[in-house]
Amino acid sequence: MNAEGAWFLRVNGSDVDPDLPALAASDRGLRYGDGVFRTMRLRQGRVPAWPRHVRKLAADCGRLGFAVPDRSALERDLADLGARHPESVARITVTSGESARGYRRAQPARLTTLVQASAIPDLPVRLRGDGVTLRLCTLRLARQPALAGVKHLNRLEQVLARAEWTDDEVHEGVMLDTAGDAICGTMSNLFALERARLITPDLSNCGVAGVQRERILDWAATQAIPATVEPLPLARLLAADAIVLSNSVIGVWWVSRLGSQRFAAPAWFDALDDVLMQDD
Amino acid sequence: MNAEGAWFLRVNGSDVDPDLPALAASDRGLRYGDGVFRTMRLRQGRVPAWPRHVRKLAADCGRLGFAVPDRSALERDLADLGARHPESVARITVTSGESARGYRRAQPARLTTLVQASAIPDLPVRLRGDGVTLRLCTLRLARQPALAGVKHLNRLEQVLARAEWTDDEVHEGVMLDTAGDAICGTMSNLFALERARLITPDLSNCGVAGVQRERILDWAATQAIPATVEPLPLARLLAADAIVLSNSVIGVWWVSRLGSQRFAAPAWFDALDDVLMQDD
Repeated sequence: MNAEGAWFLRVNGSDVDPDLPALAASDRGLRYGDGVFRTMRLRQGRVPAWPRHVRKLAADCGRLGFAVPDRSALERDLADLGARHPESVARITVTSGESARGYRRAQPARLTTLVQASAIPDLPVRLRGDGVTLRLCTLRLARQPALAGVKHLNRLEQVLARAEWTDDEVHEGVMLDTAGDAICGTMSNLFALERARLITPDLSNCGVAGVQRERILDWAATQAIPATVEPLPLARLLAADAIVLSNSVIGVWWVSRLGSQRFAAPAWFDALDDVLMQDD
Repeated sequence: MNAEGAWFLRVNGSDVDPDLPALAASDRGLRYGDGVFRTMRLRQGRVPAWPRHVRKLAADCGRLGFAVPDRSALERDLADLGARHPESVARITVTSGESARGYRRAQPARLTTLVQASAIPDLPVRLRGDGVTLRLCTLRLARQPALAGVKHLNRLEQVLARAEWTDDEVHEGVMLDTAGDAICGTMSNLFALERARLITPDLSNCGVAGVQRERILDWAATQAIPATVEPLPLARLLAADAIVLSNSVIGVWWVSRLGSQRFAAPAWFDALDDVLMQDD
């Protein structure tokens, strides 16, 4: 068994045993982190909000300056995956492939596409009822507009932030940028509720603009909940009435605790949770 | 033939055909760029300044918070490589290996170590005599003290900077940080000569503190050339009497041109070039 517990692996459209090596040592995804990825929950064999995921994947490839992977090939891989493992977590990774040694890409690049799947993480059910505990990470995110918003393979900041704690009772860490604004969790987007108004941090300098974040903003509009994207200094986050985290595996979490501060679930939390599990 | 033209590949001490996949799809080196690397020139089967390289590799592993790879195992790999390909370019890559899905590392991590080698790049001999042409990159390096100085696998900034030009007559690009200070080339360290004084940028916010940079600073001390590490704003770089670039593959280059500015070779250039080719 591979360490990740992977169930399914397809490389450039061909099945590969998840226990065997799959990637060339000279692939630029390894050499430089020159690629992007998506993590998605499969439900009943399908990826909720797939059109948004594939749009985001294409946008991220565009931001890094390489071609967009073939959508129908990805959909073939996901259909086969969904038939075999209808309830799972999938990851699509796209790299700029191989090149001669050095930072310069091959022209045209021949992309490497990996589609993987593994088990849904075993998260305690009580997190829905009790909320999650958040900590404040020491590591600050650097401001890099050229990469901000993109889910690329350069994730050392998140790795180092996640290495700051081992206590399983702490579920996520909030990350500030070097200017002191709250940006995200290590693996999630962040929302603050301020007198019935929803605020999510501006991600033009750092952070990943996730698909669930976009869905929540769209949902808020349908519910006539005022929602804005703006800078969120830590003091303002701590003074919020509620904090919500999102990603495509957990859906949404509400935060019951951050340091010594206590928070309640937003009144609409369960309704939003239901919406995110559905297609849209 | 693999795209990189690799001659030699060893993974965790075992020979692997460079044309075959070598890395697990779930290796954190690919998933998050969670690892470090060294690029080194082999001369007559040996790596000049190897003790410095292995010290830097260990320091970088320490900065990322993972164990130091076994030195004698690396030396075994390099000895075999040197016997087979005495004149080549080697790369050592160390990743935090595999883990369950997510940013959290396995404890203890089982590192993945790759030792690769390929041909020495075919650089025009005239660059020694004529100097190289430098351009100014548009992409600015983000300031991230937690990763500054480390040769880690998150190299998208360098990849994007290198993608800014395709003209083969331009040999390297100088990168500024978001504050406007000159930091490095896309693949090299940077020195400015100011009235016989050598200045190399402070790398406490970004950049890679390379082994050749350290050797040049040590060499300057033996030559009674005053050398300092300090911030180097672009205007100061442009006003320099000479500019020198270093890395372990090229050794040193002197810059003849940056934009419309012309520069001459430092008087000691050939002497330094000779020194860097030797062991120390």
